[in-house]
Amino acid sequence: MTPVLHGPPTPPLTGLRVVEFASFVAGPSAGMTLAQLGAEVIRIDPAGGAADFHRWPVSQRTGASLYWASLNRGKRSVEIDVRTERGRELVLALSTAPGDHAGLVVDNAVGRPWFSYDALAARRGDVIKVHIGGRSDGGPAVDYTVNTEVGVTDLTGPADTRTPVNHVLPAWDLLAGTTATTALLAALHRRRTTGHGSDLRIALADVALAGVANLGWFSEVRERGDRPRHGNFVYGSFGADFRTGDDERVMVVALTPRQWQALCEATGTAKVVAALSDAVGADFDDEAARYTHRETLAAIMRPWFAARTIDEAAEALTTTGVLWSRYRTMSDVVTDFEAGIASPVLTELDQPGIGPVVSARNPIRDSSEYGPVAPAAALGADTDAVLAETLGLTDAELGALHDSGIIGGPC
Amino acid sequence: MTPVLHGPPTPPLTGLRVVEFASFVAGPSAGMTLAQLGAEVIRIDPAGGAADFHRWPVSQRTGASLYWASLNRGKRSVEIDVRTERGRELVLALSTAPGDHAGLVVDNAVGRPWFSYDALAARRGDVIKVHIGGRSDGGPAVDYTVNTEVGVTDLTGPADTRTPVNHVLPAWDLLAGTTATTALLAALHRRRTTGHGSDLRIALADVALAGVANLGWFSEVRERGDRPRHGNFVYGSFGADFRTGDDERVMVVALTPRQWQALCEATGTAKVVAALSDAVGADFDDEAARYTHRETLAAIMRPWFAARTIDEAAEALTTTGVLWSRYRTMSDVVTDFEAGIASPVLTELDQPGIGPVVSARNPIRDSSEYGPVAPAAALGADTDAVLAETLGLTDAELGALHDSGIIGGPC
Repeated sequence: MTPVLHGPPTPPLTGLRVVEFASFVAGPSAGMTLAQLGAEVIRIDPAGGAADFHRWPVSQRTGASLYWASLNRGKRSVEIDVRTERGRELVLALSTAPGDHAGLVVDNAVGRPWFSYDALAARRGDVIKVHIGGRSDGGPAVDYTVNTEVGVTDLTGPADTRTPVNHVLPAWDLLAGTTATTALLAALHRRRTTGHGSDLRIALADVALAGVANLGWFSEVRERGDRPRHGNFVYGSFGADFRTGDDERVMVVALTPRQWQALCEATGTAKVVAALSDAVGADFDDEAARYTHRETLAAIMRPWFAARTIDEAAEALTTTGVLWSRYRTMSDVVTDFEAGIASPVLTELDQPGIGPVVSARNPIRDSSEYGPVAPAAALGADTDAVLAETLGLTDAELGALHDSGIIGGPC
Repeated sequence: MTPVLHGPPTPPLTGLRVVEFASFVAGPSAGMTLAQLGAEVIRIDPAGGAADFHRWPVSQRTGASLYWASLNRGKRSVEIDVRTERGRELVLALSTAPGDHAGLVVDNAVGRPWFSYDALAARRGDVIKVHIGGRSDGGPAVDYTVNTEVGVTDLTGPADTRTPVNHVLPAWDLLAGTTATTALLAALHRRRTTGHGSDLRIALADVALAGVANLGWFSEVRERGDRPRHGNFVYGSFGADFRTGDDERVMVVALTPRQWQALCEATGTAKVVAALSDAVGADFDDEAARYTHRETLAAIMRPWFAARTIDEAAEALTTTGVLWSRYRTMSDVVTDFEAGIASPVLTELDQPGIGPVVSARNPIRDSSEYGPVAPAAALGADTDAVLAETLGLTDAELGALHDSGIIGGPC
């Protein structure tokens, strides 16, 4: 009889070994996600660290990159000089080491033909390689450039803005990261079912194009032409922001008739809105009508917010079941975190080389528990251990590789 | 001997059956992704369709939702009146039907305790349920509200903007979708390895908090306070936009010394930049120095762009290897698509109920091939076939369910 299990389950990817040979956001965030789900993730860096090793933001305390330390949490770090033949051989050997739960690779290598899928598959036929690149034709691209090419920059920002507005969040990078984890795990399922390996490639530019197309926006533009900017209003429904009397800001959203009725009730505008409905012949239970008349509806509600403090508005909105939120700065988030009232997805972590940092667990809760969290390893910290465990290198061999500068990290 | 395989491989999730009981963006985009990777995805809608069935954008041709049709491509559609006991029983039975490759559920059900993990697990102990919700404490939230709470709205937009700027792209929804597919496939791996089912939950608010934390931004704010807006400049390196003489706009990015040197060469500013380097004592091969002096550096380069047409600038930038892109409207993307020069991730699809639409394949290429693409089924189109195949209902039983209004779709 199976014993009853207590406590949180074993992380779902326990036992998997993934090699990450990537830098910046998309690939490293994929590796971090897999590590958070229990996989052993080995990040391979070229000698001295990849181009992202010093990327901003950096800590004022030590100069170390908060960005790098965040995106590489929970991984093992191996440092290898890939300009050398022997270094490349080690990277290939690590990536194609045997085992049902190994032979799994995420990379964004550019201009490294020696690390192609064919080169890996020649050593291990069922290798699974997920390559993240810029464009599907092989050309380069980064989040900041693909975002300008899909039209979102012309919809973002205040209605009177005359220039494109970039997003600051590298949304396409983050989305490419979880697209890569999805690809890798789907291919692992196929390998367990059919025995076949996989050559999977994801172009950041394609992630952006598909992301916009999936909302129906390109089809809309083909029918109607470009949509104008509409500031902070939500497209096609009612969502608007308001300033309170004490100069705070809130966003309210009414996607459903129930949410709309709650908003009218909370703001005491039900009668005015009903009269407007009669006057303009619009049924505001229809979200399209709410969108069409958004400026007027927002104007009707604005005085209610202006006459109240954020606390007063918050109570009334919450009591009536309005879907709303308060605009927060990142400092506000940190203040909440330090007061212990932020979501437990955020957690304090002692990051060697930096000190305490505001870190995050993976947002996937498993039987109501967030998964484990671990700091980033120092660059090359696991080089010897990984090469010994995975490839069986001896102390003498490791010593020679250190002496010749082919591997880095502590001896 | 294994025969040599020709053509693209079988899609990786062929044979899986996933039940999606969700609406709006995050859950449906997860189901769509799984369908694109080969799974049989059954979307269950309540009678008349969920709250997203008419969501904008809608087609001018037929009034049908381009949004809904896009996010539900490639799925089977089942329509069930879940206000009835028998309807709920059918939903539970579909979700927990037997088979190694079934018992997989994605949902965003709110206020439906009958569809809890415990209710499903009581029928099938190893069920895998991925629930997408608003907040980790069970409270409601949508993309537009969680985005205001993580501080990104205060960094986005022109530097002189005094109000928060929402993103227009529902980035957190899309990211939650691929987080859900990652969760489901990780749990499937665990089930194949250990036999255990999974109760997985993802809060949209947690996806946003973790997304920002993973970039190191909250840690930075704790050390330095809030970062000011910097318009379209890229933080911590050099990225800037420029207007050309013919009133087009380009984004150029130099994250590496090589990209920076290419940009100086292309714009003929190498000597001026070198002189500035001496004058201010900054090494512009260091990206932090490029960021600090971004305004001056951009000012030095601006006349070069202003003196050229977009075509002239494009040729010079491309020849020298600058990382750059052109700002495009969505109409520009559609024009390129119609001219056959957009990425093949975009594809024309004949959507029943609408007509030809600009659709997208999944961005994951499998042995260099994009996966299959299929239109959205009409609401309830597969109700009878799915209930017959999966639960063995007879024609007489289906007829009775139609007569009593418990199931919808064509008889």
